[in-house]
Amino acid sequence: MDRITTDICIVGAGPVGLFAVFEAGLLKMRCHVVDALPVVGGQLAEIYPKKPIYDIPGFPSILAGELVDNLMKQIEPFHPTFTLGERVEELDRQEDGSFIVRTSEGTEIACKVVAIAGGLGSFEPRKPAIESLENFEGKGVTYMVRDPELFRSKKVVLAGGGDSALDWAIYLAGVAEELTLVHRGSTFRGAPESAEKVLTMAEEGQIKLLLKSNVTDVHGNGKIDSVTVLIDNKDEYKIETDYFIPLFGLVPKLGPLENWGLELEKGAIVVNTFDYSTNIPGVYAIGDINTYPGKLKLILCGFHESALMAQSAYNIIYPDKKFVLKYTTVNGIQELS
Amino acid sequence: MDRITTDICIVGAGPVGLFAVFEAGLLKMRCHVVDALPVVGGQLAEIYPKKPIYDIPGFPSILAGELVDNLMKQIEPFHPTFTLGERVEELDRQEDGSFIVRTSEGTEIACKVVAIAGGLGSFEPRKPAIESLENFEGKGVTYMVRDPELFRSKKVVLAGGGDSALDWAIYLAGVAEELTLVHRGSTFRGAPESAEKVLTMAEEGQIKLLLKSNVTDVHGNGKIDSVTVLIDNKDEYKIETDYFIPLFGLVPKLGPLENWGLELEKGAIVVNTFDYSTNIPGVYAIGDINTYPGKLKLILCGFHESALMAQSAYNIIYPDKKFVLKYTTVNGIQELS
Repeated sequence: MDRITTDICIVGAGPVGLFAVFEAGLLKMRCHVVDALPVVGGQLAEIYPKKPIYDIPGFPSILAGELVDNLMKQIEPFHPTFTLGERVEELDRQEDGSFIVRTSEGTEIACKVVAIAGGLGSFEPRKPAIESLENFEGKGVTYMVRDPELFRSKKVVLAGGGDSALDWAIYLAGVAEELTLVHRGSTFRGAPESAEKVLTMAEEGQIKLLLKSNVTDVHGNGKIDSVTVLIDNKDEYKIETDYFIPLFGLVPKLGPLENWGLELEKGAIVVNTFDYSTNIPGVYAIGDINTYPGKLKLILCGFHESALMAQSAYNIIYPDKKFVLKYTTVNGIQELS
Repeated sequence: MDRITTDICIVGAGPVGLFAVFEAGLLKMRCHVVDALPVVGGQLAEIYPKKPIYDIPGFPSILAGELVDNLMKQIEPFHPTFTLGERVEELDRQEDGSFIVRTSEGTEIACKVVAIAGGLGSFEPRKPAIESLENFEGKGVTYMVRDPELFRSKKVVLAGGGDSALDWAIYLAGVAEELTLVHRGSTFRGAPESAEKVLTMAEEGQIKLLLKSNVTDVHGNGKIDSVTVLIDNKDEYKIETDYFIPLFGLVPKLGPLENWGLELEKGAIVVNTFDYSTNIPGVYAIGDINTYPGKLKLILCGFHESALMAQSAYNIIYPDKKFVLKYTTVNGIQELS
């Protein structure tokens, strides 16, 4: 089991987490960065690495991946360390006010300050409100198609009206014994050509399409064997099935952070605007994961928040030194050795 | 007399003022930018255009002038207009809550919102505390050497111990009939080689050097004819002179903004952190010129402040529209036509 000792444990390796290393480094504080993703960059790396972004000050346009590369180069002099591909699970506050942060793989980070730069949190599937649904998870109910072969020659009920539902309906219709697509609307939100294709396949009998319909119940003995579908808010049908796959998109979740005792508001961590500290002394939240009056979820706001966080963290890490802000603007930076 | 009508009048064309045009433009608000300097860029352009800066997120290093160029390119789609080389003097709040901003040259800017991005204000010479000094300004007392020929074959008393005082002492010793350098310390703050040179010239009789000394009084009838110098806190001498030039560096001043009725604290404008508004409704202050708990005078903080300012200004400029933040991160920007 790894045990790492550092000044600041930064939770999240997105742009704001990375820039926090820079602001901390200027004040001679060391950082260890943890991220559940296997690479640095957060959403920039995961969702749109090859797309240009336009709202980073000083860049009329920059590829998301390029911004990440620049930030990595900018923090290089401060030699940050990383634990990637592990999710932060536990926060243990020690008697002396310091912390042990534990990851999903049991890695322990001993630190004096924790800066949560978790972005929108981890993305989890949006689940429909069906009472018994969770009882059947892994027993015929799944929220993601990982291996389509699993569904070969099986009966499958898909629910949803977006691209994901349309694309998988088209694909799985050629794999499953029987494919039913249940959609609450009468038109689709997904790409028009996909919607067209689904309608054609429904006419040809390759897809059983139920519009203005909702799956309202799931049945089975240990394993799913059927679902109840309410059509047009009046008629109920029971459909035999081996699998039920609701595809209602992803929603961000705080995950294990929810149990740390942090003050939350609508899924975000409440912070002060003078240093972006949370209700737990020594724990800060910066970037998209925090909330305060006037909050905007912009990368450039997270940069500002990381600067004020670092100033405040300095007082915890060096309680006896009086800090005088030195402007690095023209003097350059001094490498941490 | 020019009369310009716009949505937001931005006072100050430094990096924060320029980026405010971008944030306003994203929300379809037009900006007019006024600056006392004849060029855009503020301190970046005026003080260190060719020096690299290191603390702009995403730039491991960038020339100050290059950052200004990038920002100008970034705001181009929003077609901002500029009044350069004119100092903002008056703020006239109209009955309907809008403003007329007047410059030193009489230009009038009619606007609904004023965003003060005035940096450290305008730089003015630091004046020594001599009671009658201001009476002799322009009558032998000056705080800057503009044309050295003015001092040819005259008696000159210089005061100060920094680079400016040393450099001008060396230069003017070869121009003036008699050059006296008065310095309160016994060593100099300026470059060692300049200090060395001044000491050598003093030994050789080219400079009259008075260390541990202060000019305490200025005399003359309409025009300066002598100064009193206190040496070593005990001996007073009267020195005949045609000119007295205190060179004690520059200090930033708010200037005419001081009379606008803004709440001030130590020369900075007090703002809220939820939108960086001042005590005058419709007037915001962003960047180095404002103050709030936790304030850091960093360019990146000004960028954040300009984003929150723009959101709040939107409610003033479009009171009937409910604003929904659109993330431009990946969608690109829409040009103002």
